[in-house]
Order: sequence, then structure tokens, then C-alpha cells
Amino acid sequence: MNALGRHILAEIYGCDAEILNDRENIERIMVESALRAGAEVREVAFHKFSPQGVSGVVIISESHLTIHTWPELGYAAVDVFTCGNDVNPWDACNFLTSMLNAKHMTATEVKRGIFEQPVKVANL
Amino acid sequence: MNALGRHILAEIYGCDAEILNDRENIERIMVESALRAGAEVREVAFHKFSPQGVSGVVIISESHLTIHTWPELGYAAVDVFTCGNDVNPWDACNFLTSMLNAKHMTATEVKRGIFEQPVKVANL
Repeated sequence: MNALGRHILAEIYGCDAEILNDRENIERIMVESALRAGAEVREVAFHKFSPQGVSGVVIISESHLTIHTWPELGYAAVDVFTCGNDVNPWDACNFLTSMLNAKHMTATEVKRGIFEQPVKVANL
Repeated sequence: MNALGRHILAEIYGCDAEILNDRENIERIMVESALRAGAEVREVAFHKFSPQGVSGVVIISESHLTIHTWPELGYAAVDVFTCGNDVNPWDACNFLTSMLNAKHMTATEVKRGIFEQPVKVANL
């Protein structure tokens, strides 16, 4: 199987509600998670909801990281999607989970962009 | 099962390469897809890669849409993640697929944020 990318869908429960509701902190954690995994950050967009919750994305050369937080539930939905072999999405996912002081995390890895023949991609 | 959100992971093949490589057009299609599904657009970030390919995200009140394109393969990896009952992510996904002149699309829907008890969310 020749896949362009690996996409982790992480369900992160029992997080610190204050962290989840702090837009600047969430943005810093997400960018740091991308960098620690060796990704190259291209664009960043975060939004704070009223009365609570943060949504945001870090577009990386290798694809993206997204987060949506529900402080009132201690829950965050996180995606880490990476292409190529240089970045391990689990590095970002695990670091991020630890930074949210999460009690438990479950995650699934999905392959993206599956082709019958090996594919060579120009921009990685 | 009480889920906060529905997340579609779409693999879109046989797309028009010119469309896939046009950042402005991809951004317009993504925003239009969100709006047609009834979502509220909050933040938009798109990036054009060299020599080719576009990555981008539309953060909506209901979660997000993301896209990564490989014009050289005619392929786009698309995610549509919506929370609440007002927006059907398939509306956005199907519209978007048609706008890319795709030959075929396969997609999986994943439930996000599963809780044992019904959850009421303040910001939707």
C-alpha cells in the first residue's frame, strides 16, 4: 500500500479546562507540537469562542494539525495529518496530550492518499 | 451513543489539476462549501506550495474544513468536521467534490467526542 500521508484522529479526555480555554496557550502548544515533531509551520489560525472553547489549525508543509476544545467537558478533538517520512505524527500527538494534562487519550491512524503504485511527491 | 461531532475524511481522485493548483479558487470553493452547508465561517488560512499544491483550512463555528491538494496526482485529501445538528458535513463534501471536477470520491464518517451521557454544548 502506497499512502501519501498518515492522519491521526485523537480524542483527548480529562484535560485541564483552563488550558483548553486559553487561546494563546493552545496556539503555543499546537505550534510547539508541530515543531517538536520536526514539521515546518506555514500558516496558523486560531479562534476563541464565547463563552468558551478554542478552535485552531497549524498548516505545516507536511499537512496540518487541528484542535477543537470543549473546556466544560475537559475534551479536545485533535487531528495530526502528516505526509512524507520525515515527521512522525505520533510525536506531535503525544506531546500535545501531555501539555493538556489529559487523563486519557484514544487515537486512530488513518492512511490518506492511497495509490496502487508508489508515488513521488515534488513538494516534500 | 452521544457524539459531539461528525468528521468526514474524503479521498478525492481524478480532479482537475488546474483547479487543484489555484490557491484562490480552492479557497473560494472551500468557503462556498462551508456556507452552502449552512456553516458559519470564522477563520480562513490557505497556502500555495512550490512547485505545486495547495493546503488550506476554513475554521467554522461548527469545527473545520481542510484540504490538501496534489495537482500532479489529481488528488485532494479533504476533511469536513462539524458539530451540532444544524450542518450536514456531507453537503459540504459533495459540493466540494463536484467543484473539483472529480472522477471519484471515497469517504468515511467518524464520530468525534463520544460521551456516555448526552452532552449539551454552550457555544452551538
